[in-house]
Amino acid sequence: MTTKCHTEYLWFNTKKLHEFVNITDEVERIVEKSKVADGMALVSAMHITSAVYVNDAESGLIDDIEEWLNEIAPMNKDYRHHRTGETNGYAHLWNLTLGHQVIVPITNAKLDLGPWEQVYYAEFDGQRKKRVIVKVMGI
Amino acid sequence: MTTKCHTEYLWFNTKKLHEFVNITDEVERIVEKSKVADGMALVSAMHITSAVYVNDAESGLIDDIEEWLNEIAPMNKDYRHHRTGETNGYAHLWNLTLGHQVIVPITNAKLDLGPWEQVYYAEFDGQRKKRVIVKVMGI
Amino acid sequence: MTTKCHTEYLWFNTKKLHEFVNITDEVERIVEKSKVADGMALVSAMHITSAVYVNDAESGLIDDIEEWLNEIAPMNKDYRHHRTGETNGYAHLWNLTLGHQVIVPITNAKLDLGPWEQVYYAEFDGQRKKRVIVKVMGI
Repeated sequence: MTTKCHTEYLWFNTKKLHEFVNITDEVERIVEKSKVADGMALVSAMHITSAVYVNDAESGLIDDIEEWLNEIAPMNKDYRHHRTGETNGYAHLWNLTLGHQVIVPITNAKLDLGPWEQVYYAEFDGQRKKRVIVKVMGI
Repeated sequence: MTTKCHTEYLWFNTKKLHEFVNITDEVERIVEKSKVADGMALVSAMHITSAVYVNDAESGLIDDIEEWLNEIAPMNKDYRHHRTGETNGYAHLWNLTLGHQVIVPITNAKLDLGPWEQVYYAEFDGQRKKRVIVKVMGI
Repeated sequence: MTTKCHTEYLWFNTKKLHEFVNITDEVERIVEKSKVADGMALVSAMHITSAVYVNDAESGLIDDIEEWLNEIAPMNKDYRHHRTGETNGYAHLWNLTLGHQVIVPITNAKLDLGPWEQVYYAEFDGQRKKRVIVKVMGI
C-alpha cells in the first residue's frame, strides 16, 4: 500500500499562564483529513514549556496533576535558568515530567484510544503563541 | 517498498493491584507475525492507570521503581479525583511519570533493543480487564 | 510513495559519569542521508541508565535538570538494585523520569522542531560505551 503523510499545526494562545486543553477532537479531525486508515499520528509540542499527554478528561484529576507538578518541581524556586532573565524554570521541568509528545494509533481510520484516553495539550507558560505539530503517517 | 501495518491487542487481568509484567516476548512474537523487517512497533497502554516502559528485568529494581512512584505520588493521598468515587488518583500520576507507551525499533525483522532493554507493562490499578495495543508499521 | 527506512547508531563514551550531549546536528545529518522528505525519526537510547529528551540548550537549565533529578531520585540512596553489585539505581529512575526516546518529525527533508527544541542524549552512568539508535522512516 502507498504510504501517506499529512501534517498540520495547532496554534494556542492561552488566556491563563497554565491551561489544560483537550485536543482529542482536533487530532481526530486531522486524522480524517489525512485519509490514513491504518497508522500513527504523532502529536508533539514545538515548545519546551508545555506538554502533550494522554489521560482522563476529569477536572479534579487535572487539578491534581497541576498540584503534583508544583510539588515535584516548584514554580517559586530560584532556578539557575532564571539567570538568563527567564522565570519559567519550573515549566521546563513540568514538560520533562509529562513529556512533550504522544503517538496516537490509527485503526480503521479512527483514533484507536482506550475508553478514557484523551489527548491533552498542557500549557505551563502561556499567554503567548505556541504550536503543536500533528503528523499522520500510514496507509 | 510496500508498507505493512499489523495490529494486535494484549489483554491483562492481574491478580494483584500492582503488577509489573515483562511483555518483550509477546511484542517479539507480534513483530514476527507482522512480517515487517524494518520499522517500528508502538506498544501503548489503552488505560490511564497503567504504564508501558523499557528498563531492566531485575526484581530489586522493580521494587525500587514501585517504592519511588509511591514517594513522588503517594497512594494514600486524598486526591481531588477521588470526589468522583475513584480511589486511584495515584495510579494516574504513576502513568504520567513512567509514560503509557514506547516505540520499539525493528531491524532485520527483530526487536532492535539494547542488551538490558526489556518492555514492561506496569499495572497500577489491576484486578480488572486492561488492554495494550501493539501496532507494527514498516517495510 | 515508496517508504524508506534508514538506521544508524550513535556511540558515546563520556568522560564524566553524567553528561548532557546535544545530538541535534547528528540527527539532522542522519535524516539528510536517509533521503526521507516527510516522516519521523525515532531517537532511542539502547541503555537503561541514560535518556533522550527534547529541551533547551541552556547550561543553567541543564544544571537545574540534573539537580532536580537528584532531588526526586537521589544518587546516594541504598536502592534494592544495588544488591546485584550495581551502584546505579538512581540512573534507572532518571531514565524513567526523562524517558529514553523521542520521535522527531521530518517535514521538507528537515527536522521539524520548534524554535528552542534541541535533542539531547543524557548520560547518567557514563565512562563506558553506550549506544543510541536513530531510525528514520517516511517517504
